[in-house]
Amino acid sequence: MNIKVDLSTSGITSDIRALLAEDAKVAKEKLWSGKEDFTGWVSLPSSLCGSKADVPFKIETCPEGYDLMEELEDMKRTAEEIRGKCDLLVVVGIGGSYMGAKCVIDALAEEIAAKAETTGQNFPEVIFAGCNMSAAFHRDVIKKMREKETCLCVISKSGGTTEPLAAFSILKEEMDAKYGSDATSRIYAITDKSKGRLREEADEAGYKTFIVPDNIGGRYSVLTPVGLLPIAVAGIDIDALIEGAKDLAEEFGQAGSQADKQTDSKADSLTNYAISRVALSKSGKWIEIFEYFHPELDFFGEWLKQLFGESEGKEGKGIFPASLMFSRDLHSMGQFIQQGKQMFFETMIIIEDRGEDITIPDSVGAPLAGKTLEQINDCAIKGVAAAHTKAGVPVIKIILPKMDAYNMGQLIYFFEMTCGIAAYISGVNPFDQPGVEAYKAEMKAEIDALQ
Amino acid sequence: MNIKVDLSTSGITSDIRALLAEDAKVAKEKLWSGKEDFTGWVSLPSSLCGSKADVPFKIETCPEGYDLMEELEDMKRTAEEIRGKCDLLVVVGIGGSYMGAKCVIDALAEEIAAKAETTGQNFPEVIFAGCNMSAAFHRDVIKKMREKETCLCVISKSGGTTEPLAAFSILKEEMDAKYGSDATSRIYAITDKSKGRLREEADEAGYKTFIVPDNIGGRYSVLTPVGLLPIAVAGIDIDALIEGAKDLAEEFGQAGSQADKQTDSKADSLTNYAISRVALSKSGKWIEIFEYFHPELDFFGEWLKQLFGESEGKEGKGIFPASLMFSRDLHSMGQFIQQGKQMFFETMIIIEDRGEDITIPDSVGAPLAGKTLEQINDCAIKGVAAAHTKAGVPVIKIILPKMDAYNMGQLIYFFEMTCGIAAYISGVNPFDQPGVEAYKAEMKAEIDALQ
Repeated sequence: MNIKVDLSTSGITSDIRALLAEDAKVAKEKLWSGKEDFTGWVSLPSSLCGSKADVPFKIETCPEGYDLMEELEDMKRTAEEIRGKCDLLVVVGIGGSYMGAKCVIDALAEEIAAKAETTGQNFPEVIFAGCNMSAAFHRDVIKKMREKETCLCVISKSGGTTEPLAAFSILKEEMDAKYGSDATSRIYAITDKSKGRLREEADEAGYKTFIVPDNIGGRYSVLTPVGLLPIAVAGIDIDALIEGAKDLAEEFGQAGSQADKQTDSKADSLTNYAISRVALSKSGKWIEIFEYFHPELDFFGEWLKQLFGESEGKEGKGIFPASLMFSRDLHSMGQFIQQGKQMFFETMIIIEDRGEDITIPDSVGAPLAGKTLEQINDCAIKGVAAAHTKAGVPVIKIILPKMDAYNMGQLIYFFEMTCGIAAYISGVNPFDQPGVEAYKAEMKAEIDALQ
Repeated sequence: MNIKVDLSTSGITSDIRALLAEDAKVAKEKLWSGKEDFTGWVSLPSSLCGSKADVPFKIETCPEGYDLMEELEDMKRTAEEIRGKCDLLVVVGIGGSYMGAKCVIDALAEEIAAKAETTGQNFPEVIFAGCNMSAAFHRDVIKKMREKETCLCVISKSGGTTEPLAAFSILKEEMDAKYGSDATSRIYAITDKSKGRLREEADEAGYKTFIVPDNIGGRYSVLTPVGLLPIAVAGIDIDALIEGAKDLAEEFGQAGSQADKQTDSKADSLTNYAISRVALSKSGKWIEIFEYFHPELDFFGEWLKQLFGESEGKEGKGIFPASLMFSRDLHSMGQFIQQGKQMFFETMIIIEDRGEDITIPDSVGAPLAGKTLEQINDCAIKGVAAAHTKAGVPVIKIILPKMDAYNMGQLIYFFEMTCGIAAYISGVNPFDQPGVEAYKAEMKAEIDALQ
């Protein structure tokens, strides 16, 4: 595990953590038992990395005779094929069917650009549609489709969710108009293995398909085809992404889950973070503010909001997740954090090595002359942490050595596991979302009433 | 005032509002007295629209003999000049020196595109830098500057804030490298009228300058040159923007501020919204979630976070502002809102007429066939409001007839005035931000300690 967790300014001592250690142990065992619904993501990275991995249970989500490793190879071949014929991949999906892919592609934009420069490859732009019902937004998508060689990928377990269904039908028509009978070979569907509207349509039309596993929910699905195909098309090394998650999974799976100082390994620090979150919320810190100092992590903040918000926000419980981009938001929400109503804690996501830097010219004078932007960024990180700690705000630091596919894989798995453990400690099921149906039902009634 | 405020599902009755009506009246009188520091924005739109306006006091922020109307004409001429020679305007600023311009330009992107198509004009892309210290981010800015004809606009009252200072020094060097001695004629500074580092540098180098008024703080400055110059360059009719704000200002200024039913004019509904926010927070709803159903309003959410967060978050008080984009975030935070810990209220920003629409093809079958995306969007709005209201969440609706420069001007002024009144009712000064200095001081100490 490459990720360091600094809880020294969290305000939660090891004595307090010890109070929840047993609950955390039970939560971990539950997650790793292989017996709970929708915990397929726990062993997925190991399963994907072949049989050598020492994991407590294997993911079994696929039809008889189906091979996860073969699925992965097929995805890589398909991504290569899409890159060969398209400059644009439009992915239609909402919630878990798009947030994971977008956050990884955004976060690794620099890696993609560097790879493009080194290898001379031109990676397709990957954009996302069907996640809102704005006509203006979708007109822009259609405009792009008309300008570029396009492939279309629709992602939906059931195929019945209103927003992606409406968007897909519009964009498919656009594909038909542009490519005629060749459109079929440019459309990809990621859906249920055997049932549902999209499965039927894909089989009938002859779209190339990949499977959304049964026992992995949307917000935990980024390392399934749901996330991996778009990520691979964008030019990211999905083997490295999975490898990162697998290494963390195995180290964590094998570590003890006692939250006392004696066993405070790096892997245990994940459990300690999960425990500290719950303890902070019990002490009246009802908002977790995720913070990052690099704009390419902006959508990672959105992914975190879905992961934690949808997993923990039920039965009148939950830590309200917010996200801020610094320095930008130090000049908006910085004032509130420093002196406003204290009902939050901060979780900073810090990247240590940011690669190529920019030196500030001498003309600016002392003290900035000759320093680099990322040196100043480091000073901002330290300065903010110090200022907020002095103001009494609990600050947690999640530190990544660098931002690449391998470490991104670790970060994803790290937060998924944290979320699962914290939700179980809080006494809620991290894997359902019964409240989402309410708006769908009301919206459906409104649609049915339209003339 | 074109904006409608629907408080019928806010949970705050007129009886409750009446309890705070006197406080609101005092707040309004204070704002409109012309005697409080940093309230220049209250009469600014009227002052900008010439002497005919019936306003309680005139803005007097400029040096002797300085003419606001002339400043406005000069901005329009300068914007025209920039459009003539540049395809890219890079604006360097942080906080109030950039959020207002970006939110207006994003929100009116459709209007800009339509105008470009009708008139054949090519409006420069406007991008923002110096709001973070990411080297990767600024490398991308430099790459764009090398590809396009560029102008650079630096915005800072003092010129001494670290982030824009560092970025400007780097980007100015880039301008020098590209344009040599002609760079000066492509650099614009918006800064203090007479003092500070940037004023000195601009006067010495001979940059064209505009003035940041003394009595208007950053987060209230979008209708000063700080926001207006970039907005004008982008192709937006700044006269219409100001006119919208002016019309609302005058209607509101002349209306009574009693919050009872007898005087419940549209203008009074602004006061009622301000009162309801405070009342909701007093009843334990400590988070205000701003929601919109059109992605082009995403950055408007960021602007609102600064406006309210920085104005209200002090002395241990404040309503924590968050923002969500629907439908997208119904599939992330929707679960939490429906069933999570109830400590929030929702403020939906709804645009009634969204212009050109897209029809969903018949192939999709009932009930979507033949409907339009924005009809479905409307069903989402109604469905969400119904579902959340049934769950007991207070829902406030701010309804705009359409999104254009005039209505955007109204919306800006509407929220600025709401914020000023609500903060005064809560007993805090809406116009200072003493807590922002803490991180700056800590960061400066870190920078001074660098080798």
